[in-house]
Amino acid sequence: MALTPVADAMAMILGAAKLLPVEKVKLQKAHGRILAKPITAKRDQPPFDASAMDGYATRLEDSTVGANLKLAGTSAAGHGFRGTMKPGQAIRILTGAPMPKGADAIVIQENASLHDGILQVNVASLPGKHIRKRGLDFEAGDSLVPAGTRLNARDIALGAASGTAIINVRRKPRIAIITTGDELVAPGAKPRPDQIYSSNTFALHAMGQAWGAEIINLGIVKDSLKATKAAITKALKTSDLLITTGGASVGDHDFVQQALKDSGFKMGFWKIAMRPGKPLMFGTQGKFLALGLPGNPVAAMVCARLFVYPLLCKMMGTAADQPEATAILDVDLPANDERQDYVRATLTDLPDGRRTVKPAAIQDSSMQRTLRDAQALIVRPPHAQAVQKGDVVPLLLLDF
Amino acid sequence: MALTPVADAMAMILGAAKLLPVEKVKLQKAHGRILAKPITAKRDQPPFDASAMDGYATRLEDSTVGANLKLAGTSAAGHGFRGTMKPGQAIRILTGAPMPKGADAIVIQENASLHDGILQVNVASLPGKHIRKRGLDFEAGDSLVPAGTRLNARDIALGAASGTAIINVRRKPRIAIITTGDELVAPGAKPRPDQIYSSNTFALHAMGQAWGAEIINLGIVKDSLKATKAAITKALKTSDLLITTGGASVGDHDFVQQALKDSGFKMGFWKIAMRPGKPLMFGTQGKFLALGLPGNPVAAMVCARLFVYPLLCKMMGTAADQPEATAILDVDLPANDERQDYVRATLTDLPDGRRTVKPAAIQDSSMQRTLRDAQALIVRPPHAQAVQKGDVVPLLLLDF
Repeated sequence: MALTPVADAMAMILGAAKLLPVEKVKLQKAHGRILAKPITAKRDQPPFDASAMDGYATRLEDSTVGANLKLAGTSAAGHGFRGTMKPGQAIRILTGAPMPKGADAIVIQENASLHDGILQVNVASLPGKHIRKRGLDFEAGDSLVPAGTRLNARDIALGAASGTAIINVRRKPRIAIITTGDELVAPGAKPRPDQIYSSNTFALHAMGQAWGAEIINLGIVKDSLKATKAAITKALKTSDLLITTGGASVGDHDFVQQALKDSGFKMGFWKIAMRPGKPLMFGTQGKFLALGLPGNPVAAMVCARLFVYPLLCKMMGTAADQPEATAILDVDLPANDERQDYVRATLTDLPDGRRTVKPAAIQDSSMQRTLRDAQALIVRPPHAQAVQKGDVVPLLLLDF
Repeated sequence: MALTPVADAMAMILGAAKLLPVEKVKLQKAHGRILAKPITAKRDQPPFDASAMDGYATRLEDSTVGANLKLAGTSAAGHGFRGTMKPGQAIRILTGAPMPKGADAIVIQENASLHDGILQVNVASLPGKHIRKRGLDFEAGDSLVPAGTRLNARDIALGAASGTAIINVRRKPRIAIITTGDELVAPGAKPRPDQIYSSNTFALHAMGQAWGAEIINLGIVKDSLKATKAAITKALKTSDLLITTGGASVGDHDFVQQALKDSGFKMGFWKIAMRPGKPLMFGTQGKFLALGLPGNPVAAMVCARLFVYPLLCKMMGTAADQPEATAILDVDLPANDERQDYVRATLTDLPDGRRTVKPAAIQDSSMQRTLRDAQALIVRPPHAQAVQKGDVVPLLLLDF
């Protein structure tokens, strides 16, 4: 069986992704959610011409050096001057407060003196100076935040400032997670001598939530067709996507595949041309998707980042961030074989702003500590030529 | 009153920060939490010498070209071979499974043929090849994740793999948030003509949660000494830190200050040498801290990033990330005055991997849309000289 290139497997997985339905949420609950319809301004901001400084509102033609104006009231933020300012008058005005009717200039505090209710202008006003025109920030109907945005604090603040209380977002993808393998025991439990601690559901839970999904964690499933089919039935009832991580042996993987087939899934199954990575399983049952990742934790995490993250983004209608970068190689690397290689590596910043990258000495895909201690994966394309110390190599920055 | 440099205000605020107490949480709930005590390995990983491939366990001395070995059992992941392999025997072994007693070499599947229970070795084994030695990834007692780490998915996965179910983290900082100003109305409500929509509590809520805090959102507080003191009393009972955003006028700020003084706070109050930025208020009452940010949303968000984020990090015992960078200026910028300037700007990637930065045309600090649309703030130190198009300037990348 020929190895399937990473990009081909990705295209097939993304091709099966369905856009999730839209739901309404309160703006203050929307941090990290994916916007489904643009946020548009409900009102001009500012909604009135406003003073940008503490000072006095005047008429521009009255506001000449030496002019004496009669103080006739105050316009404060939230407490605008209610009447109309007359010629020869000035109105005390505070930052953010509405310009009174009849006023079209600002004399800032430092440029005037006040005695017995009479304001003396010491520096002439300039047209429009220190006035924030109505709609300076945005106007009613303006599209402020586009659909597909993963909402950050600035998006939410702008939405609030525009009068928006409820927004339309994509429903969170629901991911059911199971891990299989009789060698696995949950941390906290007591392993037999031939067992190891399970960590894949912990990793996938944290990654999935950070990427915007809701996780249905079905934990470790016993190596039996019955138990696996029961877990698949649960997943079908509660989620949009099932992610499994198989055991280390081929037999384990085939076993989940059998259970999926028995549950009516149409299966695709590839050997992916990547390292770390093993056979990748992909199945669909109508809109429902199932993705079988390697059991090896390092391979499971790297495959999740490469395949699950873009899949979730596609389901939510947003672009997948790929924080790619380059660095200067600290060692020589040999020519690569047919598999795209993701080499765990640490970064060191140089004083001139550049950085060097050094691969971990041993790249065995069972070693989680080197993944934890890495800041990046050096990406070695299939059949890449040998590279030397000092060469610039592409990186995938570790963001999970 | 002389302007206080940003770094001096920062030092005074951080100087008052108290480390929060330690609490225990389940590992799977710990994503984004700050580790208070290192995670140490409970066990060697792997806990036994394990095969890295599917194949056959043999004795190295038996594993010569042409040797015929008797297949005497299976070692699968989670189902190790229980007896002792004898000379002249081979044991079927799967990836991740324990090496049987008596075996010290691996013949991979591709290098052997099996007929009628007799394994013929076609390629001689090499010492240690395809065997993951016990403790290859880590050994019992190894410190795997240091205290002070903001836990990501890889940290959590490694903790799980090491047998850790419960960890020690810093309690989340509890932040009470209020915003003051009679000009403010919540989005969704109907503003009077001289009112605007409030957005600061939305911004601070989202930022604080993302930085690891628990938010007690006390919303908009009416401009009265009584209402403000009542909100402060609530904050003192429920939180570690009160953050206020004042109105645009000096009067508003003084007002919160009076309420804090009346509530027993020892106050510091500075004009910070920064832009956007206004008077910054800082008070303490025993361990409890109060920080008064500008009312202007852009200034409030930039000040929160500059002062609140490092404060929260200090309270949790972790280093504050400062994603600094540089870019090539797309325009000329004039010499700067005494205030450190944070100029909203957009970035453009060049094909050669460098990037250019372009300031928004208008930098009025009331304009939230330009903050939303920016990717970075150009940092202009006090009294910085004029810079030209093509010069490299420092940036603070917008990460909120």
